[in-house]
Amino acid sequence: MKALVYEGVQSLIYRDVADPDTHEGEAKVRIHAAGICGSDMHAYLGHDARRPAPLVFGHEAAGVIEGGPMDGTRVTINPLVPCNTCPACTGGRQNLCPERQIISLPPRAGAFADYVVMPVDNLIPVPDDMSLVKASLAEPLAVSWHAARLALEALHPSMERRAVVLGGGTIGLAASLALRAMGCEDITLIEPHPVRQSFLADVCGETVLPAADRSAPLFIDAVGIAQTRATASALTDPGGIIAHIGLGQDAGGLDIRRMTLQEISFIGTYTYTPTDFRETVKAMASGQLGSLDWIETRPLADGATAFEDVLAGRVAPPKIVLEPAL
Amino acid sequence: MKALVYEGVQSLIYRDVADPDTHEGEAKVRIHAAGICGSDMHAYLGHDARRPAPLVFGHEAAGVIEGGPMDGTRVTINPLVPCNTCPACTGGRQNLCPERQIISLPPRAGAFADYVVMPVDNLIPVPDDMSLVKASLAEPLAVSWHAARLALEALHPSMERRAVVLGGGTIGLAASLALRAMGCEDITLIEPHPVRQSFLADVCGETVLPAADRSAPLFIDAVGIAQTRATASALTDPGGIIAHIGLGQDAGGLDIRRMTLQEISFIGTYTYTPTDFRETVKAMASGQLGSLDWIETRPLADGATAFEDVLAGRVAPPKIVLEPAL
Repeated sequence: MKALVYEGVQSLIYRDVADPDTHEGEAKVRIHAAGICGSDMHAYLGHDARRPAPLVFGHEAAGVIEGGPMDGTRVTINPLVPCNTCPACTGGRQNLCPERQIISLPPRAGAFADYVVMPVDNLIPVPDDMSLVKASLAEPLAVSWHAARLALEALHPSMERRAVVLGGGTIGLAASLALRAMGCEDITLIEPHPVRQSFLADVCGETVLPAADRSAPLFIDAVGIAQTRATASALTDPGGIIAHIGLGQDAGGLDIRRMTLQEISFIGTYTYTPTDFRETVKAMASGQLGSLDWIETRPLADGATAFEDVLAGRVAPPKIVLEPAL
Repeated sequence: MKALVYEGVQSLIYRDVADPDTHEGEAKVRIHAAGICGSDMHAYLGHDARRPAPLVFGHEAAGVIEGGPMDGTRVTINPLVPCNTCPACTGGRQNLCPERQIISLPPRAGAFADYVVMPVDNLIPVPDDMSLVKASLAEPLAVSWHAARLALEALHPSMERRAVVLGGGTIGLAASLALRAMGCEDITLIEPHPVRQSFLADVCGETVLPAADRSAPLFIDAVGIAQTRATASALTDPGGIIAHIGLGQDAGGLDIRRMTLQEISFIGTYTYTPTDFRETVKAMASGQLGSLDWIETRPLADGATAFEDVLAGRVAPPKIVLEPAL
């Protein structure tokens, strides 16, 4: 099959690779759409020691099952494979499973390829009227759905459901959509990049500002650098919540003194549970997460250029989805 | 009346000051016992801009009401005076009231004095068989009771009720006592100071280690410096909780990357609600918080020496309580 292979720092080549083998309990999915994630960019720049070259990236994917009892089923892929037996898994927090695997991290190849093999439990059917390109958004939407759920569960019942989301990439936009679906009415998205800003306001209908100028009971940090954490810890209302998704910088930024004196909680959030993922697909199907019209598609064969364009900030839509040749 | 007056950095003088005036809704309390808190030490060293000299410190106090309808009632003092009308107060989080006052911070004088005047709501009667010296522990015990309550409420139900408490001062010891009263059975206290260590183990019956060598679902940081936060964020189990009480250093130490990938929550905690305070007094009275035999008493007149001894690390018990001459 063809795949977009990471061959070293900032080097991606579209070439032939071996077809994946299918084992008991797994199904083979013909990939129709696979989105580029910030973590793919991170690895592309050589900043992720867990992802040595050569490797196929891509973990936001949708396609059609080929073969077996579910042959022909249109599915979106939950890329996280937990052990299902440890205390985290049996406690319903499979995202914290110490044995968790994810496609695009060895030993599992990623979805920038013609095929991916997955446990059947990880394949979530999508309605006929949902395009597979939109269906490939389930993964990043589930990340933000999960963060929004944890944040709102932690928010004290006496506080207003009002939020500021830092970062207008896919995860930030998805956090805003998830919060709205969960009943938040007043959400401000902070995005300094002017091209991205107009897109979010004009195409997505979001309230967007270039910099945070207001306090709120809830901040979601979808960037995760010292500067965004400094902003969040300065502006979160006393007794409020910072939900932290971004992995931009490993440390720094939090005003711990203020967080202690004002009882602000910082919640680390990572991926999603299988329930979050299915709830997200349900919300997508019912239109609760909006039209999802903020995708630019490109052929998988042109993936290398897509990565270059994202890196250079030449892309206005929050998401580029790559399409293998069918 | 006599009071121990802070006259400037590391200078305390026991001298005459004016008696306080009593207003509507307030009562005058003859102080029998007032503990020295870490925050008093902080101000004594000139590190608290909110507490300029001359000022009377002390906010952990118990005594007997003089005059009015409650004349003769033995009480412990909740030193935090909220507005009772803002959203934080009406939402049951009076500790987050933006108008909150506390004795020993202007405009309210502290309790290292013969008398303090307080709103009657802040005076909690104590049983006849509880000494007023022990009753003066209610304030620091309530701080830790509050932190333990928030931490256990936030801890996922699938996780073990097992904790490590960093710091074996009053707040750390009180956190261990509160956690045990709330059903935690396995608690390890971390205290590097050898004299304090033996006291905690031999007199208080705590499990004490000089340095944290184990992970746990729950860490309570009763020190609040970069080093203790680094320890907590490295050793808290995935999906676990760090409850942060200490105010040692304003920033630094947290491994945000690990906290994000492993979904660890950091909860800032500050003082207590009126309900926490009353629950704490109830737990003290019923013996749930142990014998409270870890106090050294000294005459208020010798307060300056007590501060010097605490600063020099010459005090083994976690708490020194000063007693005005009666």
